[in-house]
Amino acid sequence: QNIQTANISTESKVDAPPMVYIAGEEMTHYCMNLIVDKWVKPYFNIDSWEHFDLSCKSRDVTNDQVLHDAVAAGKKIGAIFKEPTITPSAIQVKEMGLSKAFGSPNGAMRRGWNGITISRDTIHIEGIKLGYENPVLFERHAVGGEYGAGWAQVGKGTLITNYIPADGSAPIIVDKRDLTDDHNVAVVYHNPYDNIVDLAHYFFERCLEANVTPYVVTKKTVFKWQEGYWETMKSVFDAEYKTKFEEAGLLERSGGDLQHLISDAATMQLIRWTEGGFGMAAHNYDGDMLTDQIAQVHRSPGFITSNLIGKDEDGRIIKEFEASHGTVTDLWNDHLAGKDTSLNPLGLVEALIGAMNHAALLELEADAGYQETYDDIMKYTNNLRLAMHNTFRYGQGTRDMAGPTGFTTEDFVDKVAWRLGRYLEDNREATPPPVLDEPDRAFRKEFENIDMSKLHSIFDKYDKEGTGKIGFSDFTKMLVKMGIAPVKSTQGQAKEADV
Amino acid sequence: QNIQTANISTESKVDAPPMVYIAGEEMTHYCMNLIVDKWVKPYFNIDSWEHFDLSCKSRDVTNDQVLHDAVAAGKKIGAIFKEPTITPSAIQVKEMGLSKAFGSPNGAMRRGWNGITISRDTIHIEGIKLGYENPVLFERHAVGGEYGAGWAQVGKGTLITNYIPADGSAPIIVDKRDLTDDHNVAVVYHNPYDNIVDLAHYFFERCLEANVTPYVVTKKTVFKWQEGYWETMKSVFDAEYKTKFEEAGLLERSGGDLQHLISDAATMQLIRWTEGGFGMAAHNYDGDMLTDQIAQVHRSPGFITSNLIGKDEDGRIIKEFEASHGTVTDLWNDHLAGKDTSLNPLGLVEALIGAMNHAALLELEADAGYQETYDDIMKYTNNLRLAMHNTFRYGQGTRDMAGPTGFTTEDFVDKVAWRLGRYLEDNREATPPPVLDEPDRAFRKEFENIDMSKLHSIFDKYDKEGTGKIGFSDFTKMLVKMGIAPVKSTQGQAKEADV
Repeated sequence: QNIQTANISTESKVDAPPMVYIAGEEMTHYCMNLIVDKWVKPYFNIDSWEHFDLSCKSRDVTNDQVLHDAVAAGKKIGAIFKEPTITPSAIQVKEMGLSKAFGSPNGAMRRGWNGITISRDTIHIEGIKLGYENPVLFERHAVGGEYGAGWAQVGKGTLITNYIPADGSAPIIVDKRDLTDDHNVAVVYHNPYDNIVDLAHYFFERCLEANVTPYVVTKKTVFKWQEGYWETMKSVFDAEYKTKFEEAGLLERSGGDLQHLISDAATMQLIRWTEGGFGMAAHNYDGDMLTDQIAQVHRSPGFITSNLIGKDEDGRIIKEFEASHGTVTDLWNDHLAGKDTSLNPLGLVEALIGAMNHAALLELEADAGYQETYDDIMKYTNNLRLAMHNTFRYGQGTRDMAGPTGFTTEDFVDKVAWRLGRYLEDNREATPPPVLDEPDRAFRKEFENIDMSKLHSIFDKYDKEGTGKIGFSDFTKMLVKMGIAPVKSTQGQAKEADV
Repeated sequence: QNIQTANISTESKVDAPPMVYIAGEEMTHYCMNLIVDKWVKPYFNIDSWEHFDLSCKSRDVTNDQVLHDAVAAGKKIGAIFKEPTITPSAIQVKEMGLSKAFGSPNGAMRRGWNGITISRDTIHIEGIKLGYENPVLFERHAVGGEYGAGWAQVGKGTLITNYIPADGSAPIIVDKRDLTDDHNVAVVYHNPYDNIVDLAHYFFERCLEANVTPYVVTKKTVFKWQEGYWETMKSVFDAEYKTKFEEAGLLERSGGDLQHLISDAATMQLIRWTEGGFGMAAHNYDGDMLTDQIAQVHRSPGFITSNLIGKDEDGRIIKEFEASHGTVTDLWNDHLAGKDTSLNPLGLVEALIGAMNHAALLELEADAGYQETYDDIMKYTNNLRLAMHNTFRYGQGTRDMAGPTGFTTEDFVDKVAWRLGRYLEDNREATPPPVLDEPDRAFRKEFENIDMSKLHSIFDKYDKEGTGKIGFSDFTKMLVKMGIAPVKSTQGQAKEADV
């Protein structure tokens, strides 16, 4: 790789551009403190970063004013990094001595920043195989749907839903139904679609840039009201992107056009299409479910991004970057007990890099004279990413990647810090790091859950001759049986609404 | 097998008990005509069957009166067999010269018969392996949910949902929200839960009888309003079934209690739990999706049942039996073109047997003197099932089961008719039919879709040494990577609501 060295060193620090830094707690907060101290501060003056402590204690003490302040600052500055936070359970409220259970901060952030989409993409390490070979991009509509549903348990009677237009025109009845049971639940929600045009542009541009084939995923065969999402995506595509995708040769796998996938078909495709190289845009709820699955197939939530994209009243893009995982309580408990830990900070660092890059871009957009500093920051973040990736490749990664001999949380941070320093001085290894096969998934903690005896019995079922090996024919049978064999048609099978 | 022969023969026909027979069209109608002529009529006087022609033409000519008549007759008689029907598309309306597009008859049937659940179980052939080794039972709530949603596309304004109690008490506001977008969709639906108690009893009794472990599937972690479904199921279970299931040893795989599964976790379990031996009860929409998947894993929609269970005002159970598949248009076109066809009637015949048995049971419940005829009918249907199953096992099955040398639609019907006649005369084969491994899924028409080159490339990825064989370690890697390796915990991972 040809990453030029930067005019950036421990001797000549750069003033970091303004950014909002939202701190959380537990293991990820501890690790990010190490990272900022050892990877960032030696090269940057970060006085312009606005810090907000979104720990449970801090939200409690400020009666959640800290959340409102963080949202306001994010709107003003436009570039936000957020550590994982805890949404306390009733038990945690007691344990932490909180005055009440503060809810997830996500709603306030999505509203405050006019959230359009939550982008969740696979994170790749050049030279190490992971679940998907090529990038998988995902746009999850940031607002609307079942999460914001209003509902009530009601008895016999009538349920009437009226829409009263803001323009003073006559109200219309959206739905009127008689409830004849003694026990019903009534459910109401809405999908606001104005920002789907923005979502479409953002998605298609990203797909073009990443060289992947776009798909739109809905349940519109049954949920007829979702048709508008597809129609908007398709019309933006036809008007402004189709030719570009054709020229890039990206529509070959999708029959020469933008394809719609039923969400249930998309679930199966995510298992089949491990070569990657595609993007999906979906509603809020489907997006949540499908990106969980992408995380599983790729490796874990630590290997996908989670970036909230919104915009302010002037149309300036606001971007908030975070890891897809939580505060990693089990490692935190180990740490508090004095045990070694080995936290892989890949997702956290990818978010930090994203926020720093976006902060620099916003400065550049405001002032062309910022170009040189901008370039320095890009060189720094590129070297940081490369130093971290190569540390994995030299077998000095955390234990989820390198196995039991892998580095501890602290040693990994130190090793990357050392390598980053050398890279920034243009002191690169003489021989490139080795190219690695996919690290054994047994290294991951979740692997402890796998039922090996059941796995053996499945294997034995297909290993008919008991040779300890499965041939192609039995392999085919197995995948067909599991319903996950690759199929030729790329179109999701349209399922008839079963009313 | 010890199936006694019946006092039933071509010489002494039995008066079939009253039943509603709803005819459809295309290939399945043609095949059912053959079956009734050659398998049923030689042994039964079926004058008491009330026939209704639910073809598009007939619904058009009668302005759908035939549907209302069929529903009324079903309610009166209580045992219904239904052939697959067509819900015409706009194109079909034109082609068939219909006056309008009549909708699916399902809604009218579910309302008219107070539908509680749609039971969809795996169909097994003793002596032939299929996808699930042991029965999988499924209850899909027959009413409510997104299928019956009211919705509208609306602009800026206010959406208010009011509930006006039937008892005259004060209305309550279920939901009030401001819509700030120019383009929104507003969605309202309800779930009527009164019949969940009936569903619970029906489900748990069936699980006990089939010796399988029950699970309840919802999305209640995100869709909080679904909690009531689970609570009702759990309270019925605790009060009346827990001890029975414990005594039967059926709670060992589910941690000693009734387990709740999040629907997304259930999707993965359906792929993992191919040993079968479990039941699931779910809401209407989830049930539709999950049973589609069961059909895929087991073999095809032809291998699961679809029985609507309702009840009349007096509490008498109404049961309607149908196959899970459609009218098989492609074979019908082949037939019309004079080509050979090979329709597997397993699902159709299982439905016919179910309806005839239920009709006999209703007679017996009304009149204890019916016992001898009842026994004769049971002996007949048991022999019919056995004759059909054994015909598959002797390699005389349809082509989806026996491969290209399999029997045509007509020859299979004739062969089973011949075998049925011999079985009813107690003339059984001297040596039992062979036990067969799972018939190659390549025999199924759907198999033509499988992308063999992609399958080869997946195989090669795991066959690292290129020996043409995959060992256990690579096999494990593959399943873990696909997210379908069996896990030890039987509990669905509770996913936090990501609001």
